[in-house]
Amino acid sequence: MADQNNLNFDEQTYSSTKTGDRSILPVDMISVEEARTQILNSVSLLPAEMTKLSDALGLTLAEDLYSTFDIPPLPNTGMDGYAVRSEDTEGATYDKPIQLKVIGYLAAGFVYEGLVGKGEAVRIMTGAPIPKGANSIVPFEETDEYDWATRDTTRSDGEWETNPKTEVRIDVHSQTGANIRKAGEDITANSLALRQGALMGPAEIGVAASLGLAEICCYRRPKVAILSTGDELLPPGQALSPGKIYDANSFSLAAQVISFGGIPRVLDISADTIEDLTKNIQDGVSDADLLITSAGVSRGDFDVVKTVLANQGEIGFWTVRMKPGKPLAFGTLRDESGREVPHLGLPGNPVSAMMTFELFGRPALFKMLGRLHNNPEAWMRRTIMATAHDRLKNTDGRRFYARCKIELTENGYVARLTGAQGSGVLTSMMLADGYAICPEDTRAIEVGELVEVMLVD
Amino acid sequence: MADQNNLNFDEQTYSSTKTGDRSILPVDMISVEEARTQILNSVSLLPAEMTKLSDALGLTLAEDLYSTFDIPPLPNTGMDGYAVRSEDTEGATYDKPIQLKVIGYLAAGFVYEGLVGKGEAVRIMTGAPIPKGANSIVPFEETDEYDWATRDTTRSDGEWETNPKTEVRIDVHSQTGANIRKAGEDITANSLALRQGALMGPAEIGVAASLGLAEICCYRRPKVAILSTGDELLPPGQALSPGKIYDANSFSLAAQVISFGGIPRVLDISADTIEDLTKNIQDGVSDADLLITSAGVSRGDFDVVKTVLANQGEIGFWTVRMKPGKPLAFGTLRDESGREVPHLGLPGNPVSAMMTFELFGRPALFKMLGRLHNNPEAWMRRTIMATAHDRLKNTDGRRFYARCKIELTENGYVARLTGAQGSGVLTSMMLADGYAICPEDTRAIEVGELVEVMLVD
Repeated sequence: MADQNNLNFDEQTYSSTKTGDRSILPVDMISVEEARTQILNSVSLLPAEMTKLSDALGLTLAEDLYSTFDIPPLPNTGMDGYAVRSEDTEGATYDKPIQLKVIGYLAAGFVYEGLVGKGEAVRIMTGAPIPKGANSIVPFEETDEYDWATRDTTRSDGEWETNPKTEVRIDVHSQTGANIRKAGEDITANSLALRQGALMGPAEIGVAASLGLAEICCYRRPKVAILSTGDELLPPGQALSPGKIYDANSFSLAAQVISFGGIPRVLDISADTIEDLTKNIQDGVSDADLLITSAGVSRGDFDVVKTVLANQGEIGFWTVRMKPGKPLAFGTLRDESGREVPHLGLPGNPVSAMMTFELFGRPALFKMLGRLHNNPEAWMRRTIMATAHDRLKNTDGRRFYARCKIELTENGYVARLTGAQGSGVLTSMMLADGYAICPEDTRAIEVGELVEVMLVD
Repeated sequence: MADQNNLNFDEQTYSSTKTGDRSILPVDMISVEEARTQILNSVSLLPAEMTKLSDALGLTLAEDLYSTFDIPPLPNTGMDGYAVRSEDTEGATYDKPIQLKVIGYLAAGFVYEGLVGKGEAVRIMTGAPIPKGANSIVPFEETDEYDWATRDTTRSDGEWETNPKTEVRIDVHSQTGANIRKAGEDITANSLALRQGALMGPAEIGVAASLGLAEICCYRRPKVAILSTGDELLPPGQALSPGKIYDANSFSLAAQVISFGGIPRVLDISADTIEDLTKNIQDGVSDADLLITSAGVSRGDFDVVKTVLANQGEIGFWTVRMKPGKPLAFGTLRDESGREVPHLGLPGNPVSAMMTFELFGRPALFKMLGRLHNNPEAWMRRTIMATAHDRLKNTDGRRFYARCKIELTENGYVARLTGAQGSGVLTSMMLADGYAICPEDTRAIEVGELVEVMLVD
């Protein structure tokens, strides 16, 4: 029986598993890697623009960021305590403490103007710069601070000023440099703090803030127009009528676009007429960096999408050696001003559309976003090896991406199929957190064998 | 020497690693798990609201969604081909084909009104419902479709109508049910398609769309007010002055809030005065589901945050057995109307603030978002075992989260420290994609030993 996933085909590329008596070998079938390479070679990094730090999460830095000063700028205390001269504390112990004169109080954010001389100390709070003359910090717990402080049970912000401590007992010999954080401990002046191509996560954004930058230059997010085509499609919210189904692809693809870092714009569903398609495609490309369509790129004679695309730009129709998904179109359209917009034509079945967008659209968006700048393979998902709980059968020499759920057992990871693997079965995609891969040249992965799994959570 | 990360402490909870002669054992120190449990017990699921499907990515479903119809609704063809009566094709081969009369054409989205009788066939496109009388689909490649179609090189949408095929050659015995997708193959009528508590990813959103739903009921996103406190802090964009540093926490915490599913609102930096703090905290809680502050919750006497918090609600000050991070506050504040708002007070150092927000804030947001509904441990990060490339030393009985970069080698994962592990060194956080965990009761993890690593990318 012919493969149920094999929903469309090209006349030049019949699968050799056909049940008839003729045997026509595949022609023009390309691998997942060939398709991806061609797509990546045809999309470009988007322009960079100044971006507020609060909008930069998930963007890629388009410039090198150097620090113009040390971070922290000044040596400062890592503890609440007393800034002292180490030599003054020599020989001090709890049984034989020494006394120092307290000449000032210092909070973080302020600089002590005086000098710590022989026999003197400054009471100092975490983060405050080390006063001149001092070379070590004695933490409160190595002093009589708490003996004293606990006498004052009603203290508050202002109260310290009116009730100052004038002497402190030091119970320890404090080594030079103790509890002092050096200037430039995090980042030294004139050093490269963030490299062009850095993906701005929370810590990167924090580092840019600590450099004093309110805006940074980032590659902008791709705007992606999404077009579902087909006379059978209804938008959710309308009443169902015979022969129709609801359009799922617009919504699942838009969510994928967001999760891959792009900004989706869902176009009206297009009927299978040249007029409707032409209008919607022109609308779509007018303000997009990428147009994705679903359905209409296979062999069916009602698939007028192909005709319209060929009229509006260059378009290639591919048969990719993968399952689900197989027919794929990729090319370039032009908007009214002649600007070129890449177009990715996905299969119509919901699972095939999502799987091909994962394998081809995600790398394309990552390139546009600049994420491949320092690491051309940054689009790759983390993979693990798992034991197959179910048999994965390769029926026709295409790489099979089986939707599965990963469990961690005491014998390592186990990959369990999430149900029927037909390309119309979106629930199997929904339940999956991994795609187990049965390679093109492997007839089957048997129960208990190890299988490579792409993690997609 | 006292631990450099141990920036603040509470008088009741000195670390036992102190260098002095007194030895005061830790009191009131709680584990990471105890702190998290208390926090999770004190935050609540947020109200649910109707949400457009296009806004639902990352939200949690607040209702069970049942399908009121089969998906697909009607049996339909998985291939472009001819709908036939299986019995009419009996004995057909490529060498001994049979001929059928073509009585109609059918595209997806339409229902064929007639009946397929003996010796008849309907030309049918992928997705179209199976016409009455037919019980099997013969794909184009098992017919003379291409012999005929290739004669017509200029075909387009309309052209088929004016140049219909009236007979078809069938080269194969097509079994009953061949290439027919059953009604309800994906979801059967009246079945539970999506369960309350489901995390809405791209496939879940696609499934909801295929149910015909334009809106679904989801728990709403937490609004999180973020307040950095400290006289030493300057907002990025202003000129640096002596003793000051730029506020990084507002930005890195806001980015964490976004990546954990919340909506951040960054408040103005608060000076260390009761007036300023009171005003900013009241502003913050007025429109927030959670207030997070950084700095001001430790022992320093300029830490007036504690005083202000205690005045405005109930607040607990904890010393958590972890590094980086240790002082932590958690409690409940009230806005002017008396509404209670949970408050999480984080340490001031950038690494400690991010690490404690990861360990405590992320689970709290996940609970508010409803992500713990079906899986109370959904806040857990994936962990792997890796070989330690560097020694991880536990200096004082606190659990040590070491920032590291994971590499996959032929001998498995290797965890390499990303640099100095001081809690002021944000660059080490930035370079990390995992946190290697040295447990409380382990003195050190030696080079080459296995270590558990939380993956944070």
